[in-house]
Amino acid sequence: MALPIQDSGLQHCKFEVPEIIFGRGMLSHVGSCARRLGGHKVFLVSDQGLFKAGWVDRVMVSLLEAGLQFVFFDQITSNPKDFEVEEGAKEYLRQGADVIVGLGGGSAMDAAKGIAILVSNGGRIYDFEGANKIIRPLPPMVLCPTTCGTGADVSQFAIINDSRRRCKMTIMSRCVAADISLTDPDALETLPDEYVCTTATDAMSHAVEAFFSVAATTLTDVHAIRAVRLLSQSFVRGVKERRRDDLENLSRASLHAGMAFSNSLLGIVHALAHPIGGYYDANHGSVNAVLLPEVMKYDLPVVQEKLPELAWGLGVKCEGSESATSESVLEAIDSLLDASGAPRSLRSLGVAREDLPELATRALNDACILTSPRQATKRDLLSILERAY
Amino acid sequence: MALPIQDSGLQHCKFEVPEIIFGRGMLSHVGSCARRLGGHKVFLVSDQGLFKAGWVDRVMVSLLEAGLQFVFFDQITSNPKDFEVEEGAKEYLRQGADVIVGLGGGSAMDAAKGIAILVSNGGRIYDFEGANKIIRPLPPMVLCPTTCGTGADVSQFAIINDSRRRCKMTIMSRCVAADISLTDPDALETLPDEYVCTTATDAMSHAVEAFFSVAATTLTDVHAIRAVRLLSQSFVRGVKERRRDDLENLSRASLHAGMAFSNSLLGIVHALAHPIGGYYDANHGSVNAVLLPEVMKYDLPVVQEKLPELAWGLGVKCEGSESATSESVLEAIDSLLDASGAPRSLRSLGVAREDLPELATRALNDACILTSPRQATKRDLLSILERAY
Repeated sequence: MALPIQDSGLQHCKFEVPEIIFGRGMLSHVGSCARRLGGHKVFLVSDQGLFKAGWVDRVMVSLLEAGLQFVFFDQITSNPKDFEVEEGAKEYLRQGADVIVGLGGGSAMDAAKGIAILVSNGGRIYDFEGANKIIRPLPPMVLCPTTCGTGADVSQFAIINDSRRRCKMTIMSRCVAADISLTDPDALETLPDEYVCTTATDAMSHAVEAFFSVAATTLTDVHAIRAVRLLSQSFVRGVKERRRDDLENLSRASLHAGMAFSNSLLGIVHALAHPIGGYYDANHGSVNAVLLPEVMKYDLPVVQEKLPELAWGLGVKCEGSESATSESVLEAIDSLLDASGAPRSLRSLGVAREDLPELATRALNDACILTSPRQATKRDLLSILERAY
Repeated sequence: MALPIQDSGLQHCKFEVPEIIFGRGMLSHVGSCARRLGGHKVFLVSDQGLFKAGWVDRVMVSLLEAGLQFVFFDQITSNPKDFEVEEGAKEYLRQGADVIVGLGGGSAMDAAKGIAILVSNGGRIYDFEGANKIIRPLPPMVLCPTTCGTGADVSQFAIINDSRRRCKMTIMSRCVAADISLTDPDALETLPDEYVCTTATDAMSHAVEAFFSVAATTLTDVHAIRAVRLLSQSFVRGVKERRRDDLENLSRASLHAGMAFSNSLLGIVHALAHPIGGYYDANHGSVNAVLLPEVMKYDLPVVQEKLPELAWGLGVKCEGSESATSESVLEAIDSLLDASGAPRSLRSLGVAREDLPELATRALNDACILTSPRQATKRDLLSILERAY
């Protein structure tokens, strides 16, 4: 009953989220949002899957009803690439657009962010890798997630693939936050089971890593734990039965997790997932599903004081010893992943064993490693990768 | 253990908060915040109490260090009045200021908002009463709370006393939100015990009313319940022992409660507290302390599904019947108020019994009544007032 709230250590905190709009049918309001931001000609970034499912049409109608012109840009792939973003920026400028709408998963939204960076700042997308490299403000942006992972709609990051180096670049800046995050959970109804599963896993990784991050605060913890709670209730049913309420819970969970990690940053799961995604063009949520349990095993010994709240989020009793609770927490995560059919090994994702040392080296240079609750050497990371293999 | 999360009914929700900065010593960063917002000459709204306590000095030094000029305006009183705000606006324009910093409790921050409205929109402050009457954007604003109530630093409201009608006007608009909410919990160390108590009571009212509001969502619930939890832990110790950690918890609770109610609005406690505050120039937190238990008794029958989560926030077991849990929740609130020495009757605040019908009539026209979970007639409101008398 009496849940001890263990506040995170940081005395100073910042918390910043865009204006958030959430609700069924809300995609019909994208036009009024874009107009409110002062737009006349919308650059709409999405993909063919969403076009075929009818969601792009829904947004186009809303743009027309708001009296806005638009250009539709869908030349993006999963893990959006440098050259796609640069092509998008050229098209934006050619067309004279003045506001960006991103509709899709992390790929469409990160591509929209990359395009926004280039059209106002010029240069090449590589110039902006790292923290606070953006000088000029971006055009107004409305981002509409259609999966239950990513959090790109509320985050201050853009992740773009560098196709030359086969790696993911992280661009961090308050400038890359959307003006409006608009979630319509109805969009999940056409998302294939597999993606419901992998993107919900992404949300779980965001929530757990945000909660354990050394930069976590009460402001982020409340959202992280609510995300865990909603996921533990609706993850498996959402994937297997696809009930509307469960899908809406997964959407909410993704939003809560995004609000948490955007402000507390992440940890080793994402530090490793970025090079793996960059190297193999692998599905981000699948990689997270494989890594999360192993990273949690690594982290748990140093975050025992936060364990009861996480256990509560997962609906796990914590009446025994700390190690018993740790085991129950890990079992709860494992059973969610198993029951939802998530991938469980790096091998099954096509990762080559001989690449593991190089992936560990690259992870050491990823920004996400900085907020891991437990420091890690290359050997530690390699050992995590091997256990996950 | 297994806390049932009962999501609030509204499908569509909006959630909007300013950039938030929180931490000990943060008042030294007000200057860099004001400069970042593009300011050159700061209009600093505060009061003599904070000046004597040294906090205004702290801010002035930070403004000078950031290379900013400033004008200090302290001609405001508790429950800030129409004529004070109008005088402030004249002074702002005379001095050619271009950014506003409000430092204080709700009075200083609401006065700052009122001044900001007038300097960019012209007219009289009465012109803006109600929802969405503001046409032109306000000057950039940094609001720094120095009490543990109010929430004005994160809210989309400004409450100004109409001295002609002796009533509080509520001005509601996304425009009146600060650009930056900056909380330095150290400022509580010089706040008299009485004000720690009454402003923490205000925060508790915000949290409970936001949680029960018909416009509550998971995004607001997580903050409301965290506020209740922090208050239940630190309210009494904060007032009686004034330990630093407890005072910081009260600051955090106020911030969480503000984030909740600014987005879910309030209920009958505030609908009644506004006319009482306007009529008697009474301390807002004291009025809330008297009204909260009576309004909760009125509301509880219609919010039973949310009771377990509130009980959890208050550290109350809910193993018996619903009515037993309701009673335990009310006892928990009562015992917090008693132990902290809050006022417990309207009579003790100088309210005249013969005014109760007029106060009930006025409350019916207050915007806060719209989100009450239980509808109320004038007779219902009068009955609450009489029980609280």
